[in-house]
Amino acid sequence: MALTRREALASINAVGGEKAAQAALAALGLGPSTHLQYQTLDYGPQAGQGASVLILGAGIAGLVAAYELKRAGFRVRVLEARQRTGGRNWTLRHGDRVDYLDGRQQTAAFAPGLYFNAGPARLPSQHRTILDYCRELGVPMEVLVNTSHSAQLRPDLEQPAFSVRQALNDTRGHLAGLLATAVNRDALDDQLSAEERTRLLTFLQGYGDLSQELVYEGSVRAGHGVAKPAPGSLPAFAAPVPLDRLLHPELWGALLHTEYPEFSATMLQPVGGMDRITHAFEQRLHDELQLGAVVRQVRQNGEGVSVTFDDGVGGDPQVARADYLISTLPLPLLARLDTDFSEPFKAALRTTRNDQATKVAWQAPRFWEREYRIYGGLSWLEHPARLLWYPSNELNSPEGLLVAGYVTGEGAAAFGRQAFDAQYAASAEAVELLHPGHSASLRHPLAVSWEQVAYSEGPWLQREHFPADAHALLEAPQGRVYLASDGLGQNGIGIWQESAANSARRVVGQLAEHVIRQRQTALAS
Amino acid sequence: MALTRREALASINAVGGEKAAQAALAALGLGPSTHLQYQTLDYGPQAGQGASVLILGAGIAGLVAAYELKRAGFRVRVLEARQRTGGRNWTLRHGDRVDYLDGRQQTAAFAPGLYFNAGPARLPSQHRTILDYCRELGVPMEVLVNTSHSAQLRPDLEQPAFSVRQALNDTRGHLAGLLATAVNRDALDDQLSAEERTRLLTFLQGYGDLSQELVYEGSVRAGHGVAKPAPGSLPAFAAPVPLDRLLHPELWGALLHTEYPEFSATMLQPVGGMDRITHAFEQRLHDELQLGAVVRQVRQNGEGVSVTFDDGVGGDPQVARADYLISTLPLPLLARLDTDFSEPFKAALRTTRNDQATKVAWQAPRFWEREYRIYGGLSWLEHPARLLWYPSNELNSPEGLLVAGYVTGEGAAAFGRQAFDAQYAASAEAVELLHPGHSASLRHPLAVSWEQVAYSEGPWLQREHFPADAHALLEAPQGRVYLASDGLGQNGIGIWQESAANSARRVVGQLAEHVIRQRQTALAS
Repeated sequence: MALTRREALASINAVGGEKAAQAALAALGLGPSTHLQYQTLDYGPQAGQGASVLILGAGIAGLVAAYELKRAGFRVRVLEARQRTGGRNWTLRHGDRVDYLDGRQQTAAFAPGLYFNAGPARLPSQHRTILDYCRELGVPMEVLVNTSHSAQLRPDLEQPAFSVRQALNDTRGHLAGLLATAVNRDALDDQLSAEERTRLLTFLQGYGDLSQELVYEGSVRAGHGVAKPAPGSLPAFAAPVPLDRLLHPELWGALLHTEYPEFSATMLQPVGGMDRITHAFEQRLHDELQLGAVVRQVRQNGEGVSVTFDDGVGGDPQVARADYLISTLPLPLLARLDTDFSEPFKAALRTTRNDQATKVAWQAPRFWEREYRIYGGLSWLEHPARLLWYPSNELNSPEGLLVAGYVTGEGAAAFGRQAFDAQYAASAEAVELLHPGHSASLRHPLAVSWEQVAYSEGPWLQREHFPADAHALLEAPQGRVYLASDGLGQNGIGIWQESAANSARRVVGQLAEHVIRQRQTALAS
Repeated sequence: MALTRREALASINAVGGEKAAQAALAALGLGPSTHLQYQTLDYGPQAGQGASVLILGAGIAGLVAAYELKRAGFRVRVLEARQRTGGRNWTLRHGDRVDYLDGRQQTAAFAPGLYFNAGPARLPSQHRTILDYCRELGVPMEVLVNTSHSAQLRPDLEQPAFSVRQALNDTRGHLAGLLATAVNRDALDDQLSAEERTRLLTFLQGYGDLSQELVYEGSVRAGHGVAKPAPGSLPAFAAPVPLDRLLHPELWGALLHTEYPEFSATMLQPVGGMDRITHAFEQRLHDELQLGAVVRQVRQNGEGVSVTFDDGVGGDPQVARADYLISTLPLPLLARLDTDFSEPFKAALRTTRNDQATKVAWQAPRFWEREYRIYGGLSWLEHPARLLWYPSNELNSPEGLLVAGYVTGEGAAAFGRQAFDAQYAASAEAVELLHPGHSASLRHPLAVSWEQVAYSEGPWLQREHFPADAHALLEAPQGRVYLASDGLGQNGIGIWQESAANSARRVVGQLAEHVIRQRQTALAS
């Protein structure tokens, strides 16, 4: 009853290339740590007793930790290196600048009102921790369409594209027809009673939309044809896509990934951009947040922790002190920091590696809606850009933000190293292959390669570079220092921002219980 | 290559019961009239030359006709019997009253901000006429979730419910396993080359999520189990639903209807209620609209048409005159009106019958989201109420409008005749059967039976009472009188408001061309 790792990989590798599938595998519970899915934090406002906590990083993990610790009566200070909160939760709008580590720059030029979620862009229904925060903080939600039946598939550029609708229904029809034939040839009589056989054949006719003779000859489910039917008759439908064109492994990697609970309908997004979540936290943490604070050194002793940081205005390094420290820095970046962690802990940190990912976005008139009836969802093609991701917001309005290319894993570093013009050209080519004539209407491209973004240097951890023993070590406090990260504390239903939030909640629980225990010990002595 | 009518019916009868499936069949192009899907109306502002047109009814057909005629330079006057526009496009909000023809009354008591689309509630991506009007008029759209993988299915009350996710993936798995077995037994060797055989088996393993031995043992695609997996292992998943429980025809009527182009993702709804569409038209037709005008008589002669109507304030009947008349009244109601139509035309009108439909709605805390992770979509069960329809708007907010019961076709008239308390109780029972313990949280019920709503008297026409020759007759002008209706002008991609709009556009085209021809004749003479 268990998928092998390899099978699971094969099934969902279209989500983000072979390497990115490793990250997506957390969806299947392949993260080594599996403790918590949703921990009740109900310590009351006195639990912290005014103990002080420094938090490094104001992404989702840092914001959740700060919010919960403040609520539990801790004194909190958050040091964030960037001039914004959110970390990889990054929504780009008109005028926002993208500075790469290699010195290249871009500025978002798409029209006011449009936005680009360069990082996380979808929330599964199952991610109740982050969704519960959104409700609690009043962040309005809308549907993120992850699959549209009108989206296009072109797994083989030597053949024309067909629709998701055709792929799903023609495949179901062909297979139902084959199975009906086999049943009628008595091939499964040892597995089916006479009654089951009859029921199965009846079922297959409806399931596959088969003829009276139980042959699949096409179905209106696969889409209406273009020709007008004669009055009183049924509409024509397109001839079915032949089965051999449908047996394409990459095609089904793309189609079946939306069957996994983390990718299946209904998925959600905040109205107005993913950063509405971080802004909602930020509003409740104004006094606790310090932006532009680049941490240089971490030390601890029996009395507390001290963090040396540059405040971003060019003066001498400053020192912040507290009873405890929570680091939410990406683990490969924490590994490079000047710390006094134990050697085994440092060694564990050094095992971690970031992955790579690039998204390319354009402003465009919504030709995919008007001419293709595609409202949200993803199209897939055999091309370095891999997919088109249509906007789910402001449907049916004149212009939208089209993500044309989401390149992850193996090819991503090479893709992101190309000159921007080459990346934009590849992206436009992918659009042209699925929507001929429309690449000319694309405007204001913007590429974000996460490996080039300071303080992130990657979209997520490469799981194959994170052995279980290293993972277990990093989950335990290192003296007065605790780590929270989307790469930690994962389980079967936690990936993405959900994991970050759950990891932070876990650390908050550890800290609160530690402080409560200390107080009890003090009272007893 | 053609579905029989009966097959099509069987496939989609879960959409709205056996009878309502007749209406939904228009989705399959079974409407006898098939001319137009989307007609360009580009007559310019002078086409009408000030010719005057009276329009009866301010539903979608009447509003579209008025809007287009005004744009084409006609003088337009719309007589609407109700004190609101929209017809069956009816969104109920706090304080709105529902008056039944039999004298019973209800008042919508759900909280301000909630709304109930008592009539049409979804727009297919394919319905480009109505969607293009929405874009042109600036009506904001959002996704209407028609299927959620977390929604519940209980086709047999003697068995527990299972999820859409389980039904889809366990069925796919079972069938892939059976087909793989048959292929391995050489049962299909005459249909598959050796290479195709190998490719098919590889494909089936991924498609069905089969074991290495090509056996279906369950899949995480069908949902995560409850138990926590051991560290480093895959999460447990629920044991698969046995195939014999899945071969339920009603179940697949429910599940497969969302494969038909008119019901498949992506579907849309106006933000804030379906009547945002009619309000957008209304804003552009203030001078042309007269509410509360109940038509009593229609006459025509060589000079024009005259319509006698009560103006709703109790005075003497008034008479409106114009060059032409467009009636958008429901055809069975027009059949009863005092007119001077020809006998064959009247006879054709008298063939038409309305269907019945009841929706029951409640205000409730969103337990389906918090506890079941269901965001939008429909659940189905073996019960007179037939289904639960969860809201797609304001997702993740505290309260929502739950439609618990959408009863159409055969049983609908009996359902709607029951005392309200009995209808509410049946609705609550359906909720309890899928969401035990939660019917207690339902508040402020409201039932709308369309057969009881004045000036509609039904949700749509019964197609089996609309012979093709009658249909053809009613599509042609009757002297100076033209008919527009969702029941006319249907084709493979038109049902619902789309048909109403397309029918109106067709009549506008007929009228404009008639007037242009007349002018040309006059100039030539």
